[in-house]
Amino acid sequence: MNNFSYYNPTKVVFGKNTISKLSSLVPQGAKTLIIYGGGSIKHNGVYDQVINALSGREVLEFSGIEPNPRFETCMKCVEFIRENNIEFLLSVGGGSAIDATKFIAAAYYYESDNTWEILETSGAKIKKAMPFATVLTLPATGSEMNKGSVITKEATKEKRSFSSPLCFPLFSILDPQTTYSLPKSQISNGIVDTYVHVMEQYLTYPVNNQISDRFAESILITLVEEAPKVFKDPNNYDVRANLMWAATLGLNGLIACGVPEDWATHVIGHELTAFHGLDHGVTLAIVLPGVMNIMRDEKADKILQYAERVFGITQGTKEEIIDKAIIATQSFFASLDIPTRLSDVNLNETCIEPIIKRMVDRGWNLGENGTISPEKVRQILIDRL
Amino acid sequence: MNNFSYYNPTKVVFGKNTISKLSSLVPQGAKTLIIYGGGSIKHNGVYDQVINALSGREVLEFSGIEPNPRFETCMKCVEFIRENNIEFLLSVGGGSAIDATKFIAAAYYYESDNTWEILETSGAKIKKAMPFATVLTLPATGSEMNKGSVITKEATKEKRSFSSPLCFPLFSILDPQTTYSLPKSQISNGIVDTYVHVMEQYLTYPVNNQISDRFAESILITLVEEAPKVFKDPNNYDVRANLMWAATLGLNGLIACGVPEDWATHVIGHELTAFHGLDHGVTLAIVLPGVMNIMRDEKADKILQYAERVFGITQGTKEEIIDKAIIATQSFFASLDIPTRLSDVNLNETCIEPIIKRMVDRGWNLGENGTISPEKVRQILIDRL
Repeated sequence: MNNFSYYNPTKVVFGKNTISKLSSLVPQGAKTLIIYGGGSIKHNGVYDQVINALSGREVLEFSGIEPNPRFETCMKCVEFIRENNIEFLLSVGGGSAIDATKFIAAAYYYESDNTWEILETSGAKIKKAMPFATVLTLPATGSEMNKGSVITKEATKEKRSFSSPLCFPLFSILDPQTTYSLPKSQISNGIVDTYVHVMEQYLTYPVNNQISDRFAESILITLVEEAPKVFKDPNNYDVRANLMWAATLGLNGLIACGVPEDWATHVIGHELTAFHGLDHGVTLAIVLPGVMNIMRDEKADKILQYAERVFGITQGTKEEIIDKAIIATQSFFASLDIPTRLSDVNLNETCIEPIIKRMVDRGWNLGENGTISPEKVRQILIDRL
Repeated sequence: MNNFSYYNPTKVVFGKNTISKLSSLVPQGAKTLIIYGGGSIKHNGVYDQVINALSGREVLEFSGIEPNPRFETCMKCVEFIRENNIEFLLSVGGGSAIDATKFIAAAYYYESDNTWEILETSGAKIKKAMPFATVLTLPATGSEMNKGSVITKEATKEKRSFSSPLCFPLFSILDPQTTYSLPKSQISNGIVDTYVHVMEQYLTYPVNNQISDRFAESILITLVEEAPKVFKDPNNYDVRANLMWAATLGLNGLIACGVPEDWATHVIGHELTAFHGLDHGVTLAIVLPGVMNIMRDEKADKILQYAERVFGITQGTKEEIIDKAIIATQSFFASLDIPTRLSDVNLNETCIEPIIKRMVDRGWNLGENGTISPEKVRQILIDRL
């Protein structure tokens, strides 16, 4: 097992009708800004629940956070906060609203006017952030219980991430009932995002870490078992609750304890979104099977373990089992009506070289061993045409 | 799934040679008291590592914390802290040293001179505690990453617990290498303690919580698989690391999220220790199979799930599978050379009534449904003669 540190101070308040607890959880007397996206929370009752819970407080709103939240929009929000002397941020929505809020919280106190530097330095220079909390309405990113964030600069089509121990939410409220009204595509994208987060902390090489491996497999099995139920029985509370808690635990640092990680799928996926505006989950479903295939030798031991423990695949040669595991993974994504090939989203080989060029320019070599070179990324994307 | 709150701000620093990190983790300038037990840390090198890491600091020591730490000893330590203006506590040892430190940290600031009240009120009146951290040397109780503590009053033979969100360690250092020198009985007791902690958060009734169930099963399977290895190959680092991390996760609040709990085994076991001085792990190994047997109807669904997923038992009638699961549990404890019957520790039926009387006096009804009455406890203990 590898050495590790684990620290996660976010309080999770999970369950039915928990949004009302905002009244005691939001710090008394703090002028609060509610940050949200396109307004779906006004149609599903979440906005009303939040406003009711905060009645009698001094509360302002900033809406219009986009999917793949934009740096430019976030900076407008920072300006709004300065003008209105806000002291506490409450993000209401999915990963986009929460990631934006993390950036805004850090940018407000950032010592340089060049706040894009937060992304360029992965958050290393953040010294202070405004306290914030979240009401989660879309299980997917795990942002509600971690310190990371992904922001897109529209001007340059860059999608970059940062993290800071100062960017943990103070608390997050997770009421699975808020997910009943999600469109199918968002549910599917969220399941794929969670699945791939777990795979990126799991599918590397074995270090004899029994707990992290089995916890990762627990989340994967839960997703595989619960996903079909959520479409057959959308108002089944327990199914929604299992998917929501799975998404949070998929990226709160826990299953990364003491194991190698390989975030190649997310990095490549971010470029597909940055260049072509694809849904985040779609990019992951396209890329992951390619990473598994092209890296099948380096990852062989863990792919075999994954095949057996998650899908019960034990028959065949080593190469056959690996092939079956890749097919099972891709089929699971396809069962959610998620595209799994570049051609499914009308992209062809011309999409590849701009991504390779960016990787070369940045000197990026990905993967748990740093062996996913730009050339390997090319092979991965060709594999997914 | 049940509603829940989860909050755990303890930072875990896990791995080889991590004790040296004390130099940066202990707050600068804080006069520190090292609290430990009988001195084993002076023989296994841990004491020297701690002292070296804190060289140049103002550090005092308080030793002599007993197994099943005594209220009376803790209060002597509080007095010592007052006399010496201590500002930070560093507990070095197993659950006993850590539990004692939690009580000391709370008792120092307690508003009443009657500090035993902390136990009588389960910690509800604690308003402030001295900051403290731990260096764990014995995986078992999970105290290194939770807010709970168990203290024994020698004068009245009472063993009681308390918890408070103010009693989380600031950080805990877990170096599995420190466990190489543990005697076999302490390793076995620790494994049983962890196993039973997990069972008490798992073996109740199903609430369709896929994640907490599978995480619990992950820990149980890890214990069953790793336990034989630790005795065959005591210096295998990964085995020690898996057991240590399993113990922490067995009682850090995570697997209790959204599920019912049944702490009857611990409560009954505490009485056996309070009256007869038995090792904590031994009491649990004796009591748990009795709880499973006497509560076999109420717990049937979960016992069947446990039988299949942890031990692969699927053949037979429902009653036969339950019998096999109880035998498998008891056999696992016996494989660790832990007594599993009252007669194995030279107790007979005369030990039962004083425990029943205490339960009646306190009005205790135990179990996830409050149905483990004093009469049921009598049946459980008769079952374990």
